[in-house]
Amino acid sequence: MSTIEYENLKYKVKTRIYKVDSSFGPGVARIMELVKETGNLSKAYRTMGLSSSKGWKIIKRAEEDLGFALIESITGGSGGGKSRLTEEGELFLEKYSNFTKDLEIQCEKLFYKHFYNH
Amino acid sequence: MSTIEYENLKYKVKTRIYKVDSSFGPGVARIMELVKETGNLSKAYRTMGLSSSKGWKIIKRAEEDLGFALIESITGGSGGGKSRLTEEGELFLEKYSNFTKDLEIQCEKLFYKHFYNH
Repeated sequence: MSTIEYENLKYKVKTRIYKVDSSFGPGVARIMELVKETGNLSKAYRTMGLSSSKGWKIIKRAEEDLGFALIESITGGSGGGKSRLTEEGELFLEKYSNFTKDLEIQCEKLFYKHFYNH
Repeated sequence: MSTIEYENLKYKVKTRIYKVDSSFGPGVARIMELVKETGNLSKAYRTMGLSSSKGWKIIKRAEEDLGFALIESITGGSGGGKSRLTEEGELFLEKYSNFTKDLEIQCEKLFYKHFYNH
């Protein structure tokens, strides 16, 4: 079989973590990162171009599938209306982020190995 | 931060290879594998629950983005109506399959490392 020189090929990798439903992926992770940064869930949805109902749905789906809450509201006090990650949510996001970062490194290596022979 | 024991977590990884459009992923690869096995494009679509127009569209999109044909019809002779992979298509599918297999191995390792600490 002949060889071929590929020009400007790119790769993209997406990982989901779940129990039954394929529930936790880049979308929920990004919402959580934004909540962590800003404490503002509505703003996170807006930044991602999601309606509140759509955003809420994908978070709920992940929480129900994983079996623990990811995001909680901070009620009362002057910070009313703010949100934050739960302790389990923060830990899970950290694991997911580290996992996807490590995987990205491997993916880049393997991509060059298989498509560019180096 | 406390640790948490996750039960029955699973992971899923999807990779796409492309130039501009995010065009080549598990769907096109599966169509190509089925064509390789059976020589029958319509049957490949049916097996995957795709309409011919939808199936054709995702192949065309990948071919246009990558810049070469993936599948060709075998015209004439008693095998009329059959399809096969082009030489470039076969080579690309092989690279994609090997790449995703290697990545799957790394993914499993990293998944257990990050979510189960072993």
